[in-house]
Amino acid sequence: MAHLTDLTDAEIWTQLESGALARIAWTASSGPQILPVNFVTHDGAVWLRTTAHSSMADQIDESPVAIEIDDIDPATHVGWSIVVHGRAEAIYHESDVPEEVTSLRAWAGDHRPLWIRVSADTVTGKRLTSQ
Amino acid sequence: MAHLTDLTDAEIWTQLESGALARIAWTASSGPQILPVNFVTHDGAVWLRTTAHSSMADQIDESPVAIEIDDIDPATHVGWSIVVHGRAEAIYHESDVPEEVTSLRAWAGDHRPLWIRVSADTVTGKRLTSQ
Repeated sequence: MAHLTDLTDAEIWTQLESGALARIAWTASSGPQILPVNFVTHDGAVWLRTTAHSSMADQIDESPVAIEIDDIDPATHVGWSIVVHGRAEAIYHESDVPEEVTSLRAWAGDHRPLWIRVSADTVTGKRLTSQ
Repeated sequence: MAHLTDLTDAEIWTQLESGALARIAWTASSGPQILPVNFVTHDGAVWLRTTAHSSMADQIDESPVAIEIDDIDPATHVGWSIVVHGRAEAIYHESDVPEEVTSLRAWAGDHRPLWIRVSADTVTGKRLTSQ
């Protein structure tokens, strides 16, 4: 059976800094939404890139979001999961984006001019071990 | 660059029926939430299992949720993503759960007596191809 234990802050940020693919959840007028996104972390924030006209960008600017990354074996249920809660902010000028962040490739390719910065208010991580 | 195309309904349900690990998003009073969950599909619905006293179970009963599954290569961005929108309903008696569903193992192991059924209102799928 799998067993849940907390990850330390150091373990959480190590995983966040090495991560590439996350899922972001937010609340639209039609209800909860979820999409996969590529991300990078920098200076305590999670950065995403999207199209300026995507529905996600319209809906999440200045709104609370939850971002999850994980690595879980579906067969054994061993792995880990990290959730970041924070507020999303659209960054319209690339000059406002740190150089360490601009290397991020958006998950769906071309024409992704809008950056989203999510300041991490809370970060929680769980390890699933087999015992 | 990656390119987005729609999956057919047949492709979507083939992936949903073979899937095991999803992420579920819902809206709590504190804002959007997201967690990994194991799931099975049966008769047009997505079934999850959780602890009766988990915060997810308290929050999602009779509420709209979004469930996402994907298989995306973080390096090449090739893969697919499927999102199910629907309404969650807690099923308190295992006798109300179809036999095809009860083989599901919960992602975090033991003491998972509560079943969640999500009727799929909308199901959308995207393929990311390299071109």
